[in-house]
Amino acid sequence: MAFDLGVIGLGVMGANLARNFVDKGFSVAGFDVEAAKRERFLQAAASGRASAPPTMQAFVASLAAPRVVLAMVPAGAAVDAVIDSLRPLLEPGDIVVDGGNTRYGDTQARMLALEGTGLLYVGMGVSGGEEGALRGPALMPGGDERAWPRLKPLLQAVAARAGDGQPCCEWMGTGGAGHFVKMVHNGIEYADMQVIGEAYWLMRELLRMTPADIGRTFAQWNEGELESYLVAITADILSRIDPESGRPLVEVILDTAEQKGTGKWASQAALDFGLTAPTIAEAVFARTVSAAKEERVVAADVLKGPGGAFDGDPATLIEKIRRSLLAVKVCAYAQGFQLLQAGDREHVWNLPLAGIATIWRAGCIIRARLLEDIRSAYARDGELVNLMLDARFAATLAACQEDLRDVVGLAARHGVPAPAFMSALAYYDAYRSPQLPANLLQAQRDYFGSHLYQRVDRPGKFHTQWGLRSTS
Amino acid sequence: MAFDLGVIGLGVMGANLARNFVDKGFSVAGFDVEAAKRERFLQAAASGRASAPPTMQAFVASLAAPRVVLAMVPAGAAVDAVIDSLRPLLEPGDIVVDGGNTRYGDTQARMLALEGTGLLYVGMGVSGGEEGALRGPALMPGGDERAWPRLKPLLQAVAARAGDGQPCCEWMGTGGAGHFVKMVHNGIEYADMQVIGEAYWLMRELLRMTPADIGRTFAQWNEGELESYLVAITADILSRIDPESGRPLVEVILDTAEQKGTGKWASQAALDFGLTAPTIAEAVFARTVSAAKEERVVAADVLKGPGGAFDGDPATLIEKIRRSLLAVKVCAYAQGFQLLQAGDREHVWNLPLAGIATIWRAGCIIRARLLEDIRSAYARDGELVNLMLDARFAATLAACQEDLRDVVGLAARHGVPAPAFMSALAYYDAYRSPQLPANLLQAQRDYFGSHLYQRVDRPGKFHTQWGLRSTS
Repeated sequence: MAFDLGVIGLGVMGANLARNFVDKGFSVAGFDVEAAKRERFLQAAASGRASAPPTMQAFVASLAAPRVVLAMVPAGAAVDAVIDSLRPLLEPGDIVVDGGNTRYGDTQARMLALEGTGLLYVGMGVSGGEEGALRGPALMPGGDERAWPRLKPLLQAVAARAGDGQPCCEWMGTGGAGHFVKMVHNGIEYADMQVIGEAYWLMRELLRMTPADIGRTFAQWNEGELESYLVAITADILSRIDPESGRPLVEVILDTAEQKGTGKWASQAALDFGLTAPTIAEAVFARTVSAAKEERVVAADVLKGPGGAFDGDPATLIEKIRRSLLAVKVCAYAQGFQLLQAGDREHVWNLPLAGIATIWRAGCIIRARLLEDIRSAYARDGELVNLMLDARFAATLAACQEDLRDVVGLAARHGVPAPAFMSALAYYDAYRSPQLPANLLQAQRDYFGSHLYQRVDRPGKFHTQWGLRSTS
Repeated sequence: MAFDLGVIGLGVMGANLARNFVDKGFSVAGFDVEAAKRERFLQAAASGRASAPPTMQAFVASLAAPRVVLAMVPAGAAVDAVIDSLRPLLEPGDIVVDGGNTRYGDTQARMLALEGTGLLYVGMGVSGGEEGALRGPALMPGGDERAWPRLKPLLQAVAARAGDGQPCCEWMGTGGAGHFVKMVHNGIEYADMQVIGEAYWLMRELLRMTPADIGRTFAQWNEGELESYLVAITADILSRIDPESGRPLVEVILDTAEQKGTGKWASQAALDFGLTAPTIAEAVFARTVSAAKEERVVAADVLKGPGGAFDGDPATLIEKIRRSLLAVKVCAYAQGFQLLQAGDREHVWNLPLAGIATIWRAGCIIRARLLEDIRSAYARDGELVNLMLDARFAATLAACQEDLRDVVGLAARHGVPAPAFMSALAYYDAYRSPQLPANLLQAQRDYFGSHLYQRVDRPGKFHTQWGLRSTS
């Protein structure tokens, strides 16, 4: 029997994705250096269409040509090791897909390194977590376009489907396009998780609500415009009781966030492209400051905060927080989609913006009702410069901005850290400012470094002979 | 005559630094491929101690051994070109100093590449702008330590001197330490310029003050705790009238900020080290959004802001803005010094923190009265984890934090973009929070990705079998 495709790396993500292919009727060979993982995969798949050969040679030999090998191993050295093992075993026309969270520049470098071998290399973003892998992830493949006709029926069969039946898998473009799009997805995910966390914290700190009450609030929100996977799981998390202590589970979980780097890469890419993505960066920094738990515990005794409790109407404030959350999410998505456009300008991938919103509507971690509106915004206007400028989103922001101002003011007044809320508001206000104080900044740069400035009234670069002289 | 040192690159910075050496009694050979620049240097130096040989060979031959060559050329390929030209002409024991704004990793790579040649390579941060170069810059050399005894008398002679007579030049450490410290200096400089710009903008937008009035306010502020070079030049800039139009000069300068990359690198380094430096990053993003002038002009007609003018007491608000500016500066410096410590942990340079504050007190762009307090903080406690935790700075923050809360609230309410002010307040509040909503975030990560979490009550890593299942 020649198997339809092979999956290398039978950890949770790899095994679940392989089982997903089996469930959709494909025959799948799995490989992992750990025998226990091969065994567990076979038991879980429980199908004659699944095999798990004990060696890489036997694994490759069992695949139908041209072969499709999907690597689900940790980003970095493991990917190189898989490629090195496969190279002598594969033939021209065979396809290697890296489904890990690889830095997109690494994918581009690996494609270059494989040039001339005849192997078709693809970097694919996979989102949806373990459940998504098993039941339908969002898939973002990019790289060697000659691989797409062979991959398309396989990948679209296992991908999630949106409400209109469309599969959450489209070709992203050449080179590192697939992993770039996944990186931006994760940057948005970082921001989305952070702003949900800030909304939770505002309700806890300003209104002294219990986790269960906050969870019920998120569950209500999930019935409306904010409907999304992350809001839904937040409602579920906050409702949980720790069986050991009887306390709300969230309160026994340590508040030190970890990260695997994709949000950091997204922020760094924005900086490299000269693109404004502060809310994504603030979400990363919110994780790093949370990780400095020991410092914070010390600082809590040293640094002073404000006194005084919030004494307004709780229901009114809860609704303000909900509308603020919506506005902040729009700002964060606007930054993410501008980052997609900036990467596209740099690398000329021709990223399908409406298509990306389409596949993010289901399967992936940031799936949300909002993404259907984003899809239609880019479907209406493929050249849309900023999501906030779409008439529908501009109206949402107009309706919510006063509430966001109130909530930011309350956070400031009561000492509740809200870096992403604040950053999104500052982003909104800067972006809608025809004038900003950068005129002063350009004057300063010309003052100390003769860097020249432009004038508002005629073209050219100008220098002023400034008077103050350095004396020290 | 054998010259004491050579300077390659006779642009404004190089020529001024070379003249500074001449003024201090050293003999200096200058070289530039452009004859006009050599000519201009000789005329400006107007001294028998200055020469400008027409070829690199003659330039090198004119130097006393062991030779000291200071390259003042643009970072990047030009530095490599200089090194390539010099290598065949220099001898073991000769010293090459790169005084440009080079990325510190590049300096480390160049040191590695020169290993075994016997040449001593040094990467040196130079701050102070053109005036500083001529009259006394802050100098931050690092790299091959064997070069320091030969360089010390040269560099300390031309460096600025602080009020207590100490030269603003110390050895920073091995490898890329010098350029790393300069990068952090520039990151702080970005934040400092941005928060001054926000204070200017708040006075303009909330109080409708004229540039001249705002300039007078900065001049007053420069008499007190905020005394600094950047505040002083801001006062001067805002007082200027454009001779062409008769309008305030700052109002005819286009508000699109440019950048050369050091603030971006500082933000990216913070992200790489897992260090929290949001105010530096927000300062970089404030430049990028200002550069998107055309987008902003379009957005101004689409995105709605609040109405209503500020109707409180102007003098009270001006003082609140002053105290906010002080608090925000402390937060930004705290981030910068933590970034120094993070780099030091990573690269084991043994950076002299008090020494760095010492040399930043004069000569450089961020020179300020504040730096004397920073110097004494690190002199008292070399292990100080965060500048905000120093008793004196904690007291300053305690005294100013209420005003910062008011100003952030006003900025939010009135639609004035204040990303750095807001980011600093959120940083302060997060850092002094013994608990943050990262517990929810860790639960979310475990929910969709089985990433595990820690508990507050016992060690270990835990996973919950979460209930909500992906359905799409």
